[in-house]
Amino acid sequence: MGAGAEQAWNKNKIEIGILGLGVVGSGTVALLQRNRAEIERKIGLPLHIKRIAVRDVDKNRAVEIDHSLLTTNAFEVIDDPEIDIVCELIGGVDPAKSYVLRALRNGKQIVTANKEMMAKEGSELMEQAASKHLDLQFEGSVGGGIPIIQPMKNALAGNRILEVIGIINGTTNYILSKMTRERAEFLDVLKEAQDHGYAEVDATSDVEGFDAQYKIAILASIAFTNRINVADVSVEGITRIAAPDIQYADELGYVIKLLGIAKRTADDRMQVRVHPALLPKNHPLAATNDVYNAIMIKGDSVGDVMFYGRGAGSGPTGSAVVGDIMDVCRNLRFGSTGRISCTCFDSKPIMAIEDVVSRHYIRMVVQDKPRVLSAISGVFGDFDINIESMVQKTVQGKQTDIIWLMHEAPSKSISEALKVIKNLDVVVEVSNWLRVEE
Amino acid sequence: MGAGAEQAWNKNKIEIGILGLGVVGSGTVALLQRNRAEIERKIGLPLHIKRIAVRDVDKNRAVEIDHSLLTTNAFEVIDDPEIDIVCELIGGVDPAKSYVLRALRNGKQIVTANKEMMAKEGSELMEQAASKHLDLQFEGSVGGGIPIIQPMKNALAGNRILEVIGIINGTTNYILSKMTRERAEFLDVLKEAQDHGYAEVDATSDVEGFDAQYKIAILASIAFTNRINVADVSVEGITRIAAPDIQYADELGYVIKLLGIAKRTADDRMQVRVHPALLPKNHPLAATNDVYNAIMIKGDSVGDVMFYGRGAGSGPTGSAVVGDIMDVCRNLRFGSTGRISCTCFDSKPIMAIEDVVSRHYIRMVVQDKPRVLSAISGVFGDFDINIESMVQKTVQGKQTDIIWLMHEAPSKSISEALKVIKNLDVVVEVSNWLRVEE
Repeated sequence: MGAGAEQAWNKNKIEIGILGLGVVGSGTVALLQRNRAEIERKIGLPLHIKRIAVRDVDKNRAVEIDHSLLTTNAFEVIDDPEIDIVCELIGGVDPAKSYVLRALRNGKQIVTANKEMMAKEGSELMEQAASKHLDLQFEGSVGGGIPIIQPMKNALAGNRILEVIGIINGTTNYILSKMTRERAEFLDVLKEAQDHGYAEVDATSDVEGFDAQYKIAILASIAFTNRINVADVSVEGITRIAAPDIQYADELGYVIKLLGIAKRTADDRMQVRVHPALLPKNHPLAATNDVYNAIMIKGDSVGDVMFYGRGAGSGPTGSAVVGDIMDVCRNLRFGSTGRISCTCFDSKPIMAIEDVVSRHYIRMVVQDKPRVLSAISGVFGDFDINIESMVQKTVQGKQTDIIWLMHEAPSKSISEALKVIKNLDVVVEVSNWLRVEE
Repeated sequence: MGAGAEQAWNKNKIEIGILGLGVVGSGTVALLQRNRAEIERKIGLPLHIKRIAVRDVDKNRAVEIDHSLLTTNAFEVIDDPEIDIVCELIGGVDPAKSYVLRALRNGKQIVTANKEMMAKEGSELMEQAASKHLDLQFEGSVGGGIPIIQPMKNALAGNRILEVIGIINGTTNYILSKMTRERAEFLDVLKEAQDHGYAEVDATSDVEGFDAQYKIAILASIAFTNRINVADVSVEGITRIAAPDIQYADELGYVIKLLGIAKRTADDRMQVRVHPALLPKNHPLAATNDVYNAIMIKGDSVGDVMFYGRGAGSGPTGSAVVGDIMDVCRNLRFGSTGRISCTCFDSKPIMAIEDVVSRHYIRMVVQDKPRVLSAISGVFGDFDINIESMVQKTVQGKQTDIIWLMHEAPSKSISEALKVIKNLDVVVEVSNWLRVEE
């Protein structure tokens, strides 16, 4: 009970080693340098950055740094017996995971902002850390500087979490916000975002939803105290969102956002999914625009709480990393590392996306002929799908856009109904199908 | 260095004693009962409520409770040698403070949701706790269930906090929201809120801003690592807000909210104040309506982060208290109580409200005569106050409402200018003067 007593702190300062000095690493180092006196006053011990591993020691950095601290050899950080905390700020699974495992074997405390590694390999790493009573903190892996992981593990920990729903990818939120404001098309806005550096040259991980997939997997695993197999988290990006969808959503009182969603259903099954969805304009998340992130949590006692802030960037993510470092320092000082370790007690499977019940938005192009509506609505009826509302728009000549809002139905029913509807003579195309969240 | 080792945990469960079983106490007990298994799994030890002190053991409670746990004698909780954590959920300074002091002398860990006691007597209590390496947690004292104190002390702790601005009183926010929606007058809405139980029969502490004053004093003391003398926090309630103010604010693109504000100025002086203010409609806090609270924090690294949720009530505040209890339990288990203690390192004074510089809104009634505007604007000019905009409204007959928006000016200048303006022949009355926040 309590690894604490075995590990009481007997050094006169805490030595930090850092892997990676990119966007997050620079923000972390800059903050540790700038607010060092206050940080040390709060943790009650001096802090010292001993070594930083980088790919290129001669590269110009956003932060002023003593060049003698830099090394291209990560093992000079990981294997240095004097280093207490290793901050892994490289990103990606390989080689980050092997570095972290080795650092844990060496008895180092770990702070990371690596969402992909934590989502895919978190279980193994957390188990390894727990078995040695070591800290492994990862606040910076979700939501940039927004405190979300610590509050879920601490202040909200008494709640049974019913739902986590968040805008957790800044790039796609920037693109969708701009598409909404300017009625622009996806590819044009993406190109502009890339030109301005708001989106990466290879934006796949963002626009296809993988970045959000990692993050919601992490949040769901904490919310449900359950291991989440990231490959089981269904994911759909924003590449199919077209200007008319945003236009029609707006007319119906909605905005389109890429959401990460983790829900417990009434019969206690878990949904974890990423997809664009229509969100009512008066929803607390709906006003979250541009690179901002926001995460809403529903607990059985607290009700709805929302956390909002910059979801990425040097300063915000650096803030999260330094917060974690300070938490680890306090644990080192008090001999209480491993104080809050892995809480993934269960390994229940999540629901298949086909079984997820929600409201739906469907946009299609049809021939402007009699009986079109009855033919289509007849098919929806065959699949027990109830129509909430329908709007017809004359687009050009003999073709009409029809926008349907459906009452709650399983995705599977919609998918099967649309297969039939696509083959109706009068239907030119089913242009899009999106979920509607409340 | 590390009281931890001295106090390693050697009991097979953690015993909790509770003082007060009102709104917050019931929410706390209900949550501990409902989610007990999950809570114990997370903290790694069994929890047991041993004793609850109440005023009336026979009163009907919102929570089902074994009557043998109840006592009317608080000392049966405070002095029970088996009790590890005392939850003070009575509220007010007297006798809560004396109970907490005695419990600390007895070596108990403390969890409280008592804003008035923490704002007025927090320094003494925190010092007492720190000297004995005991925990004294108070997440529930501000923002109900919204995690705010823990995040400021942990995840955001690396930041130099530049600003805290919040809607931190649910009753006044409910009243102002309703006045805004229904264009109703303050006294009518207050009466209705009292009839419905949303406001207390004696609503003084809420409507005069004292409740918000306690809360912003607590937040400022953490944000600035500085003791805040609550009596120095200038406070102004919402009783002077009239329907025309809300109407004119709306026309100008603002909403009126009661704000708690803590700011560092460019020359590193601290402002801590509570008053109603005009807030632009696109401000992230502006959409916080009814009983919801929201707190925005600006850190030098993280930028703006916002926390939103229910600011009061049994479930939300119970959530915060249970989160604190779990934090203390983890510290007990690891021998790390007192791990994050008082961070009020400094005792610098805060700025006088007269010196606070902000934009201003002024509403007055004047005679509809020539040269009125030049007379009034001449006085503003004499006091170096620059006019941003002015709107004249013909109200009735020979009298006109004038609404002024002023560029930044010290409160003192406005106050002195208004003294002169009141005495001008053409001025019927200065109806209201409010600050404008960005």
